[in-house]
Amino acid sequence: MSKEIVQDRFNKLIERANPSDLATIERLLKGIERQVEEPKQSWLSSLFDLHTDISEESLKMTIPISEITHNSLGILHGGMTTTLIDSAMGTMANKLAKEGFAAVTTQLNIHFTAPGIGKNVTADVHIIHHGQTTMVLGSSAKLENGKQIAYATASFAFIPKSW
Amino acid sequence: MSKEIVQDRFNKLIERANPSDLATIERLLKGIERQVEEPKQSWLSSLFDLHTDISEESLKMTIPISEITHNSLGILHGGMTTTLIDSAMGTMANKLAKEGFAAVTTQLNIHFTAPGIGKNVTADVHIIHHGQTTMVLGSSAKLENGKQIAYATASFAFIPKSW
Amino acid sequence: MSKEIVQDRFNKLIERANPSDLATIERLLKGIERQVEEPKQSWLSSLFDLHTDISEESLKMTIPISEITHNSLGILHGGMTTTLIDSAMGTMANKLAKEGFAAVTTQLNIHFTAPGIGKNVTADVHIIHHGQTTMVLGSSAKLENGKQIAYATASFAFIPKSW
Amino acid sequence: MSKEIVQDRFNKLIERANPSDLATIERLLKGIERQVEEPKQSWLSSLFDLHTDISEESLKMTIPISEITHNSLGILHGGMTTTLIDSAMGTMANKLAKEGFAAVTTQLNIHFTAPGIGKNVTADVHIIHHGQTTMVLGSSAKLENGKQIAYATASFAFIPKSW
Repeated sequence: MSKEIVQDRFNKLIERANPSDLATIERLLKGIERQVEEPKQSWLSSLFDLHTDISEESLKMTIPISEITHNSLGILHGGMTTTLIDSAMGTMANKLAKEGFAAVTTQLNIHFTAPGIGKNVTADVHIIHHGQTTMVLGSSAKLENGKQIAYATASFAFIPKSW
Repeated sequence: MSKEIVQDRFNKLIERANPSDLATIERLLKGIERQVEEPKQSWLSSLFDLHTDISEESLKMTIPISEITHNSLGILHGGMTTTLIDSAMGTMANKLAKEGFAAVTTQLNIHFTAPGIGKNVTADVHIIHHGQTTMVLGSSAKLENGKQIAYATASFAFIPKSW
Repeated sequence: MSKEIVQDRFNKLIERANPSDLATIERLLKGIERQVEEPKQSWLSSLFDLHTDISEESLKMTIPISEITHNSLGILHGGMTTTLIDSAMGTMANKLAKEGFAAVTTQLNIHFTAPGIGKNVTADVHIIHHGQTTMVLGSSAKLENGKQIAYATASFAFIPKSW
Repeated sequence: MSKEIVQDRFNKLIERANPSDLATIERLLKGIERQVEEPKQSWLSSLFDLHTDISEESLKMTIPISEITHNSLGILHGGMTTTLIDSAMGTMANKLAKEGFAAVTTQLNIHFTAPGIGKNVTADVHIIHHGQTTMVLGSSAKLENGKQIAYATASFAFIPKSW
C-alpha cells in the first residue's frame, strides 16, 4: 500500500469506530509512534508499552493492562504475562551472558496464581542458578497493588552470538 | 483524543515512516480493521491475525510470524509462541468444559526446541487428562514446513462462570 | 515365607556378600529396624533415613546420600531428589491444609542445577501462593556444603479427607 | 558391623516383626538378593524391582506398587512415580547419546493425573525433540489396567563422559 492508501483506510476506519474501539486505537497509535520515533529492541515492547527498570542489583519490567492485553474472558491473557516474564528474564540472562554470547530460553514453567485484573503488571527477576553454559531464573509478576498473579522459573542456554 | 486528532497524528506519523515501518503499520492497520469490523473475542486475536481451524476431533491455531511477533533477536518471541499455545489450549479446554463452567490455565510448562524463523506458526492441541475439575492438555507448535519449535503441557481448572 | 526361611535366606546372603554390599545391607537393615520399632508415616521415610526439621516458620527435610540413592552414574538419582522435595512440600502443604482436608501434588517442575555428590541433601520449602483450593510451593535442595543441586515448584490441591 | 552382628540383628528383628512388616521385609530381602547376586546398574533398580522392556522402537519400565513405594497417604509416592519416569527417560536418552557422551536430566515437569492405586506402574517414553546438545522426552505412567496416573516431559543435556 502507498502512504496515501494507508492514511485513507485509517481515516475511514476512525470515522466508523465506536468510543471503546477509539480508545484502544489511540493506545495502539501511541505504541506505533514510540517505535517509529525511537525504535526499541522490538515492536512488541513499543506496542505493549513495556517499561524496564534496571539497576546493578535488580531488573523489573512493567506493562499496562488494557484491551490489547486481554484474553476472551476480558482479563490479562496468560500469554501476555508470560511474554512480560520471558522478556524480563531474557534481558537479565543476556545481561549476565559472557561477551560474545547470547542467552536463549530453552524452557519455561509458569504458575498462574490470581486473575490479572488491574492497571499494570510488573515482573521482577532473581537468579536461581548461574552456570557456565546454562542459567535458571525465577520471576514473580505482580499487580500495582502488590498482588502476585504469576510465578515462573525458566532455563536459559548461552549460545555464541555468531549463531 | 478526538477522532480528528487521532487521524492527524496517524497521518503525520505515516509521512515520516520508513518503508520497513510502513509495512509493519500496514499489518497493524489490517489487524485494527479486523477488530473494528468484525470483533473477535480479543484484540490480541485480531492484531496478531490468529486463525482457528476447529473440527469435531481437533483444534489448530495459526499466527503469521512478522516484525510484530519478534523479540530483540529478530526471531519469534517465546512469549508469542506461548500466547498462541495458551490460546489454542484455552479454547479447547473451554470447549470441553461442562455447561456453566469456564476453564482457566493454572500452570503451563513449555520447551522451546528450535528458533521460530519462518512465515507462520501453528499450534495443535491434544488431551493428556480430562478430569472432573481439572484438565491437562498438550500442544506442539510447528512452522509451516513442519519443524517443531515448541512443545507445552498445561493444567486447567474448571470454575463456575458466575465467577 | 516363614520367619525361619526369611532368616535363613538373609543369613546365607550375608555369607556371600562382599564388603561393599555388606555396608549397603547394614544401611538397609537399620532402615528396616527403624520402621519395625517406631513406624514412620511411610517405609520410604525409614529406609532412606529421612529427617524432618520443622518449626513454626520453616520446614526442612534431609536424607543421606549413599549407594541406595544413587543412579547408574553413581550420583544422587534425580528421582530421589524429587522424592525428598515432594515429601518436604507435601508435609508443608498438609500442615497448611484446613481441617478435614488433605493436600495432593497435582504438578511438579524441577530444575537440576548441579550433580548430587556429597554426604546428604536437605530440602527447604517456601510458600509461593496460598489459595482457597490450591497452593503453590517452592523448594531448594542443597548439599551439606550449601551447594544447590535442585530447585522446584509444585502445585497442590486440597481435597476432602474422606476421599 | 561384622557379618555375625548383621545376621544377629536381622534375626532378632524378624522375631518381633508383625505379619505386615514381615511381608515388606521379605520384599526387601528379595531386592537385596537381586543386587548381591546379579548387580544392576543401581541398588534402586534392584530394591524397587524395576523391569525394563526395551526394543529397537520403544522403552518401558515397570515397578510393583507396594508398601515400600507408598507415601504417608498409603498410595504410590509421587517421587517414586518420578523416579520411575526419570529412570525410563534417562535410559532412553543415554541410548540415544552419541559415543562418548552421557545424558543428564536438567529439568523435569510432571503432571499427576490420578492416584497410584494398583499392582504396578509402567512408564513408556517418546521423543519430543532430539537436538545436537539437548533432548526433550515425554513419558506417560500407567497402572496395569491402563489408567494414566502421570505425564511428564524432561530436558536432557549431553555431556562428555570424561566429566
